[in-house]
Amino acid sequence: MDMRLSKSFIKTKKNTPKDEVAENAKLLIRAGYIHKEMAGVYVYLPLGKRVLENIAQVVREEMNAVGGEELQMSVLQPKELWETTDRWDDEKVDNWFKTKLKNGTELGVGLTHEEPIVDALSDYINSYKDLPVYVYQIQSKFRNEVRAKSGLMRGREFLMKDLYSLSRDEEEHERFYEKITTAYHSIYARLGIGDITYTTVADGGIFSKYSREFQTLSEVGEDTIYVHEKNEIAVNKEVLNDEVLADLGIERSELTEETAVEVGNIFPLGSKYSDALGVFYTDENDEKHSIVMGSYGIGISRLMGLLAEHFADEKGLVWPVDVAPFKVHLVSLPGGENQADQLYAQLEDSDIETIYDDRDMSAGMKLADADLMGMPLRIVCSKRTATEGKVEASLRPTGNAELIDTGDLSAIQKLLES
Amino acid sequence: MDMRLSKSFIKTKKNTPKDEVAENAKLLIRAGYIHKEMAGVYVYLPLGKRVLENIAQVVREEMNAVGGEELQMSVLQPKELWETTDRWDDEKVDNWFKTKLKNGTELGVGLTHEEPIVDALSDYINSYKDLPVYVYQIQSKFRNEVRAKSGLMRGREFLMKDLYSLSRDEEEHERFYEKITTAYHSIYARLGIGDITYTTVADGGIFSKYSREFQTLSEVGEDTIYVHEKNEIAVNKEVLNDEVLADLGIERSELTEETAVEVGNIFPLGSKYSDALGVFYTDENDEKHSIVMGSYGIGISRLMGLLAEHFADEKGLVWPVDVAPFKVHLVSLPGGENQADQLYAQLEDSDIETIYDDRDMSAGMKLADADLMGMPLRIVCSKRTATEGKVEASLRPTGNAELIDTGDLSAIQKLLES
Repeated sequence: MDMRLSKSFIKTKKNTPKDEVAENAKLLIRAGYIHKEMAGVYVYLPLGKRVLENIAQVVREEMNAVGGEELQMSVLQPKELWETTDRWDDEKVDNWFKTKLKNGTELGVGLTHEEPIVDALSDYINSYKDLPVYVYQIQSKFRNEVRAKSGLMRGREFLMKDLYSLSRDEEEHERFYEKITTAYHSIYARLGIGDITYTTVADGGIFSKYSREFQTLSEVGEDTIYVHEKNEIAVNKEVLNDEVLADLGIERSELTEETAVEVGNIFPLGSKYSDALGVFYTDENDEKHSIVMGSYGIGISRLMGLLAEHFADEKGLVWPVDVAPFKVHLVSLPGGENQADQLYAQLEDSDIETIYDDRDMSAGMKLADADLMGMPLRIVCSKRTATEGKVEASLRPTGNAELIDTGDLSAIQKLLES
Repeated sequence: MDMRLSKSFIKTKKNTPKDEVAENAKLLIRAGYIHKEMAGVYVYLPLGKRVLENIAQVVREEMNAVGGEELQMSVLQPKELWETTDRWDDEKVDNWFKTKLKNGTELGVGLTHEEPIVDALSDYINSYKDLPVYVYQIQSKFRNEVRAKSGLMRGREFLMKDLYSLSRDEEEHERFYEKITTAYHSIYARLGIGDITYTTVADGGIFSKYSREFQTLSEVGEDTIYVHEKNEIAVNKEVLNDEVLADLGIERSELTEETAVEVGNIFPLGSKYSDALGVFYTDENDEKHSIVMGSYGIGISRLMGLLAEHFADEKGLVWPVDVAPFKVHLVSLPGGENQADQLYAQLEDSDIETIYDDRDMSAGMKLADADLMGMPLRIVCSKRTATEGKVEASLRPTGNAELIDTGDLSAIQKLLES
């Protein structure tokens, strides 16, 4: 894809909307990644769209690896399904967006999908041979939050991955529950936050004693957790008591209080939804059984907000390689234009995703933009480098520059992998 | 991606919902591609999701090739933007879905995006140097249709590509308008409907004398067009009069009446939206000018419905290779299991997307399912083929079987390209 800044409408900005208070959104707006449509609702500009896709792709690969099948549910939701489980009434679920057909029929605007998933799968599940089923989607969800001041961290419209498991019994459910816990940690590791993300014991709701959250340490988090460093687990403040300590075999004194962001959660759902919607399976003896369900969420756009805020310095964004919208930020300075043009063509041919700043603009502004936009590797071509047959390469996290031979793509690859 | 039918929940079905009248939806439901959530609203099951993605990818590549930059607008829409252009009131635009924030603020559920696009871009457009801009998105749209009886062909929730061009003047606008007309034809050609899709002269609305639609001949179309075979154009019935014939230099007697489906439209928008939202640009002399806009739509899910219905026979779906969710449908029959397992591993290694029917089920049912599901190439492994070291390959459109050496992937590739 041709990505010359001279041809793109993308620009960095000095100002952010007056009503924007979240650092992640401010930074992403300044760097030209998103546009604020209203509180909690953002437009993803080309760079932001690519970041979102990159995070979604990491999640997709890990969900496929544990046997997940991707589908896409509808946003518009029929009231009847949600009445079956008593989740329609605003008194029961207080963050629905609702709308109406022309004939007055009320519809919901999808905030989660347990009921419609079970309903859709009911056509496909009869016998024990049809289970287990693991389905997921990556889709915009809508929640009517009273306040939405955390930028991408808590949106009214946001991108989420939600997977649903339907198992034959508790044992089969447990096996998958452990498997997806591992898959979640792979995701966080690939996104560069593996070392600061903890499986966290949280409230299990009505179906089980505990559920599991995945909490990433962050000053801007809304949650308080207690980390047990040695065991690499944490406990959400809301469930911290003597019982939970005993269950985990840990001491209160071994815990450290931390602020964190919930970057995923996995819930045992029991048979509430499948029973309510009348979906059962029959065993080898034609006896009817309840299905044991779980749901597994990851906020893709929330992760984008978190990563933007976490991997940043005073100059701007510092994307991990797997998430960055482009891997290389190529900058041409006076006298280096031809060298840069040639290198850009080579990078494109080698599928090394590159944003090329070929604009007629001061060196200071171009270099500041590269820092703000945060691609992992910056390469500068100038009169000096062109004369020497070298280019100046610097990794965004350190900013340390080194000269490499122009056109040495393997050196570029090596730097990206370092 | 592992796609063994024994592990997937996907199954073909005998029955379709009683209220489903559209052939495209009936066929896709029977073949396990979609689930009907309500009239005009469908769930895309794993196979259907892949078809949708494949069509979107063809469209994406052609939009990128003409300089389009992909972004993603929000579904939730602030009322104020649409009041600026008098498109909020239900008396003016009668197919809005509307909803409300907790504080009572009315919001729209996105049906198109001219106003928010112009508003978002206003931060990025000041001078003539910032133009032209071509942005597009591929996103679910929502239209409150009174009736929705055409399956995927006219949904209340549907996937659409919409591109918007912002040009400095009429001439620049015209150049892009011609360029995208060519790009649209490339898309239809790649989807296999190039020869039955016509650029069609239609009503231009208030901005220009005519607009252009792209109409595909189909018995189930809602439009009547008059085709001029020799000039490879058509005229929509709604604008057929002596003036249009004179403008096109054609005779009434040279036209053939046909039923067709609108698979795309491109509209000159003039400066209505940019002027209303106060977005202008300044030229070299710092003089202010209006921006000339166009919008360019393609219904991705409508195309899926059309292709399903058009490329079908009495046995089921017959997908074009570029659209098919999997290219090969591998079937193991008794005695051919080991041969099929080996071939599946080889196909996976070679990235030839394959759905593998390894279920313990009668040969008749498995072959009927392969026909219904419609992958381009069916490969059968049986006791006989295993003994001979061959496999039986047949292309879905003809059904003619031939024996090829087992593991001869280049023969398989050749068949897929034939």
